[in-house]
Amino acid sequence: MNTQKNQDLTVGVIGGTGYAGGELCRLLLGHPNVARILPTSREEKDFEEIHPNLLGSGLSFLTTDRLAERAEELDVVFFSTPTGEAMRTARHYLDRGARVIDLSADFRFADPAAYERAHGPRHESPDLLREAVYGVTELYREHIAKARLVANPGCYAITAILGLTPLLQGPATGRRVSVHAVNGTTGAGVTPKRALMHAEVAGSMLAYSLGGHRHGPELEEVLGGLSGRPVEVDLNTTHGDFARGIHLQANVDVPAGTTRDDLVALYQEFYGAGAAGEYFVRVNARSPRGGLNVKDYSLYPSIAAVNGSNFCHLGLDVDTERNIAKVVAVTDNLVKGAAGSAIQNMNVMLGIDETTGLRHHAL
Amino acid sequence: MNTQKNQDLTVGVIGGTGYAGGELCRLLLGHPNVARILPTSREEKDFEEIHPNLLGSGLSFLTTDRLAERAEELDVVFFSTPTGEAMRTARHYLDRGARVIDLSADFRFADPAAYERAHGPRHESPDLLREAVYGVTELYREHIAKARLVANPGCYAITAILGLTPLLQGPATGRRVSVHAVNGTTGAGVTPKRALMHAEVAGSMLAYSLGGHRHGPELEEVLGGLSGRPVEVDLNTTHGDFARGIHLQANVDVPAGTTRDDLVALYQEFYGAGAAGEYFVRVNARSPRGGLNVKDYSLYPSIAAVNGSNFCHLGLDVDTERNIAKVVAVTDNLVKGAAGSAIQNMNVMLGIDETTGLRHHAL
Amino acid sequence: MNTQKNQDLTVGVIGGTGYAGGELCRLLLGHPNVARILPTSREEKDFEEIHPNLLGSGLSFLTTDRLAERAEELDVVFFSTPTGEAMRTARHYLDRGARVIDLSADFRFADPAAYERAHGPRHESPDLLREAVYGVTELYREHIAKARLVANPGCYAITAILGLTPLLQGPATGRRVSVHAVNGTTGAGVTPKRALMHAEVAGSMLAYSLGGHRHGPELEEVLGGLSGRPVEVDLNTTHGDFARGIHLQANVDVPAGTTRDDLVALYQEFYGAGAAGEYFVRVNARSPRGGLNVKDYSLYPSIAAVNGSNFCHLGLDVDTERNIAKVVAVTDNLVKGAAGSAIQNMNVMLGIDETTGLRHHAL
Amino acid sequence: MNTQKNQDLTVGVIGGTGYAGGELCRLLLGHPNVARILPTSREEKDFEEIHPNLLGSGLSFLTTDRLAERAEELDVVFFSTPTGEAMRTARHYLDRGARVIDLSADFRFADPAAYERAHGPRHESPDLLREAVYGVTELYREHIAKARLVANPGCYAITAILGLTPLLQGPATGRRVSVHAVNGTTGAGVTPKRALMHAEVAGSMLAYSLGGHRHGPELEEVLGGLSGRPVEVDLNTTHGDFARGIHLQANVDVPAGTTRDDLVALYQEFYGAGAAGEYFVRVNARSPRGGLNVKDYSLYPSIAAVNGSNFCHLGLDVDTERNIAKVVAVTDNLVKGAAGSAIQNMNVMLGIDETTGLRHHAL
Repeated sequence: MNTQKNQDLTVGVIGGTGYAGGELCRLLLGHPNVARILPTSREEKDFEEIHPNLLGSGLSFLTTDRLAERAEELDVVFFSTPTGEAMRTARHYLDRGARVIDLSADFRFADPAAYERAHGPRHESPDLLREAVYGVTELYREHIAKARLVANPGCYAITAILGLTPLLQGPATGRRVSVHAVNGTTGAGVTPKRALMHAEVAGSMLAYSLGGHRHGPELEEVLGGLSGRPVEVDLNTTHGDFARGIHLQANVDVPAGTTRDDLVALYQEFYGAGAAGEYFVRVNARSPRGGLNVKDYSLYPSIAAVNGSNFCHLGLDVDTERNIAKVVAVTDNLVKGAAGSAIQNMNVMLGIDETTGLRHHAL
Repeated sequence: MNTQKNQDLTVGVIGGTGYAGGELCRLLLGHPNVARILPTSREEKDFEEIHPNLLGSGLSFLTTDRLAERAEELDVVFFSTPTGEAMRTARHYLDRGARVIDLSADFRFADPAAYERAHGPRHESPDLLREAVYGVTELYREHIAKARLVANPGCYAITAILGLTPLLQGPATGRRVSVHAVNGTTGAGVTPKRALMHAEVAGSMLAYSLGGHRHGPELEEVLGGLSGRPVEVDLNTTHGDFARGIHLQANVDVPAGTTRDDLVALYQEFYGAGAAGEYFVRVNARSPRGGLNVKDYSLYPSIAAVNGSNFCHLGLDVDTERNIAKVVAVTDNLVKGAAGSAIQNMNVMLGIDETTGLRHHAL
Repeated sequence: MNTQKNQDLTVGVIGGTGYAGGELCRLLLGHPNVARILPTSREEKDFEEIHPNLLGSGLSFLTTDRLAERAEELDVVFFSTPTGEAMRTARHYLDRGARVIDLSADFRFADPAAYERAHGPRHESPDLLREAVYGVTELYREHIAKARLVANPGCYAITAILGLTPLLQGPATGRRVSVHAVNGTTGAGVTPKRALMHAEVAGSMLAYSLGGHRHGPELEEVLGGLSGRPVEVDLNTTHGDFARGIHLQANVDVPAGTTRDDLVALYQEFYGAGAAGEYFVRVNARSPRGGLNVKDYSLYPSIAAVNGSNFCHLGLDVDTERNIAKVVAVTDNLVKGAAGSAIQNMNVMLGIDETTGLRHHAL
Repeated sequence: MNTQKNQDLTVGVIGGTGYAGGELCRLLLGHPNVARILPTSREEKDFEEIHPNLLGSGLSFLTTDRLAERAEELDVVFFSTPTGEAMRTARHYLDRGARVIDLSADFRFADPAAYERAHGPRHESPDLLREAVYGVTELYREHIAKARLVANPGCYAITAILGLTPLLQGPATGRRVSVHAVNGTTGAGVTPKRALMHAEVAGSMLAYSLGGHRHGPELEEVLGGLSGRPVEVDLNTTHGDFARGIHLQANVDVPAGTTRDDLVALYQEFYGAGAAGEYFVRVNARSPRGGLNVKDYSLYPSIAAVNGSNFCHLGLDVDTERNIAKVVAVTDNLVKGAAGSAIQNMNVMLGIDETTGLRHHAL
């Protein structure tokens, strides 16, 4: 691969029938450096029936076997597959020179034992686990630029990590962070189940895995690493009555006297503001209006303002009676939480401008 | 008032144009002991345009002044008014023999100073404040039965109190409870604002008052009183993309070794099960299915299963890695969270069967 | 069966796992004359998991075979089953003295050939087909009162019939009526399919069967019979992003000069107004406000104003440039469109006040 | 203006606070030829509070007066204003060399009298009315390329015109077309009203203007002109429980024997298929599956598959019993129905590739 080749990329999308796979295809179709997209499906399926938003795109599915045979043609391979698939077949593509970006959980833990505790099966490629770089671009950019294999974070994880790192590297006290995240139903996958039917979720909310969610240990490991101290994540996850987006609220104890302005300044310093800052992370720095009797609905970000985009918006506040910092972090679970982030990592791995194909704003 | 009169009640609804006022009218229309409903409106308005679900009900608005003139006819008066109204005019009705149930915050605090800290204006009837009984029927039934004046709890408050009391009177450790509540947009009132327009909220969520919500101190006072120890409430409030219902999750530290089964047993003991138990509080005692790889969506209650009804459903779990109890409590914010609860209190105050007019299940 | 027994009814609900079956159970639980409800399920299922809104109701499923053995105990049997079931087994219950109300399509056509054209299989009980009475209570009340077997109408059909009959028996010209109906996703049944998953329908609409819907011929037969002339129904059906309710718009040519006031008067005369009128059919008679530049959103009914109730609300207008009458008819597809209507018919069949157990207003 | 200048465009957006104005800004931010965007607001407002999706974009509002002073700098001016504004001030910009694209109704009618009948006020620039070109790019491309002033169509109108023109220029019989369109609530504008609050629309639908909608005459004029014969449009408009998108169904009589395949072939011929065809109009040519008992939900397009994009998807069917063609046409009301279409017209007017800045697919 070389700079010239990076103008004319061939990209495989293994697991192209799910929501993240579809988003990879959609975003890659708009990426100026990508010439060929090869999505795979285990069963024979009509691409445009599965992804009607891409009607007329000309894409169609090939089998995973057929893609494996064409591994040498590929510059980049995305895995958008259930747990267990990438750890078995990523090596095939790496050995033939492709970069691999895995959107599943297979390469997210440094330690195979941690993987096994969270996901069950024995890890089959512990050497690759050691090599893989965790793909929060804003925080591990240097490593990603040199990586062959990137473990793209979970959608809850990346949203929480972007929202919490400045606080945890800064004024946070105590080891507990409380994270409540509400995800769109695309986050539950495409397998039909009665609990996920429209008639069941419309006008309601669906809490799940309150006894323990796999992103909890992932978050604790990454946040602990980033902040250099033990972090305990109290994680609640729920599906809301919307298809897309994560609305995440994280509460952390802070020293008495900490104000909303302090946090805004901290986050603006951390992520930069304006052109010099991180393009995809934006902090709502608006000043609150009014007094005791005014609810100001514009202080915190909403998923409507990021859906369809690769942005993470952050809002901040402090309960000054109880000295608790409140972070609101929102992303599109399928873009910044999955496919967009993965393409951002691809750009960094290939030395392309990081925002290529991803600059558009939300609707 | 006497038993016979309780078959033929005349009821005033002050502030009949809002959502809670409309729900009071709807439920009172189906109450077998209520003969006359007199809703008021400050401005001249067409009742059936404001409440199209009651098309053909024959109700119409009178002015508050007109109702005041007819105070002697009234058995019960509900205040469904902004803060500050009931503390000024409740006495007029009490003095003429009516029971008063106030759905605003005016009589929720024992101490006028606490009221003033949370709501601003100076309290104008501190003597009534001392007399008022806080209206969580399940927990203060004896007092309510003897009361002339009941302070109906806030919708977040009652949902949290029913969800947390067994834990706080029992195994909870530490003083902090973490409460995340998502409310339907009827909870934001009927005054048109751009932030609350359908086009703004559809497909999104709207966090608000994270720096401090007035139900926080209300909750701390009541939960502290019920549990006999200081309680700190870390409260996050958000509107979801639905019109009705509160989906509340409360997390509390518990001793190591506490299990989901322990909590289910605790709550079933506290609220009773079956015909002997509290009619309106029901605990999901289902056993979880499957292992590490199964998400069981049926363990926690959903607002779809309570909306339109006076039920509070409770679900329980424990994060056994971190020893955190998780309570999911759902109510219809306008029924159990407001009008239904108020009528339940009316029934108790008048010696009528508590469930009269309120037994119907959610859709 | 006798009047006394009608105070203490035993009712079977065959097909109790679907949405209409669940609604039958919910409404029957609140019916003062019903003592025992026996819902059936083909597979072994937990009643409260399937119908979490009925948590604590004490109901549980029996097998259809077990119910058949207890046929003699039953006063009424509801079939809430797929096409083909009731025509085979209704006789078993009729022969043992039960009234049968079939919510499927099995007994909706007078002519077996019409049934077979619309639904496929050969009809196995043509004699019962002749005996069955079509269950729009408001229009066939006398016949229903004497019937052993009632064919409950389809949800689209009953909504259209209540909305169109006054016009078709009155000023309508031409034979074509144009019917566009949007139904909640509960109308699509409980079988999980990808197209009906929440993530697919949220924020969208799902048109279906535009080439021909089975309620078309049903409507043409009934409306033709009621109006005494051939009626052609141009029917479009769509699922909307809501779980419940039918919002139906029907357009019919009318003579030049026909006004909105004419139609309101016609419908009020037909259905009666106030206490003397049909309890469950209500006409929005509000006068439009403002001039050319004012959109008056209060002229037409909305499903929000009927959901959960057995009401049908009707709104009327005329495009006076083109002489087209516009009818907006809304119902809850599971109540007036299914279970509520069925219980209304049960009441009539048993000589109970028709509104018993069904009087509550929408939320 | 010249080709080089077209690389570095300065664009005014008059009326930048509404939904269409916000979408113009969003899309222009991603347009490679646009260097400067100048949105205006009548009142002083914070751009990022009004359009939180553009947080960090650096845009801010100027007054309309200030923009008028800078008219000479402008290459293109978009009017996204209430009726009556553009007819008064478009000339100011035209005289100073800018192209003008008006998203309001001011220049949509050829005849001032028709404008006055539909919208009320006397037209103040009848000479410009004659000059203006109606902006359905696909049908009037040659004229738009030479125009100084384009009247961008209404959102209902463009969706119906793209959906109906092949039929009306082809096999349609009779003069009546029946159009039922459901629009997102962004189509109702940003002025807060109780009827448009989230709590009112959630889970419901809101019909309006059934007695006559202004897009009716606009449609009749354009469709009559395109088909060379009188067309009568029976138009029903409704808001659905979603923020964006138009789901439009149009029914037209066709000769006996017309099939779905005939229509698919007709539309593919009209719009072209694949790379040779119209980029933004795509026909669902999938063959229906299954028989009498199968509902195939994939035959008709959904707004979820176009929202956020400039695409119009078309689906076709025939009720072969009654010989009625059914067209389903979906667009994003704010993109193809407003801002996207306007930018497509800008591209054509300036000789830029028509799809520039608009190629992205829906989410």
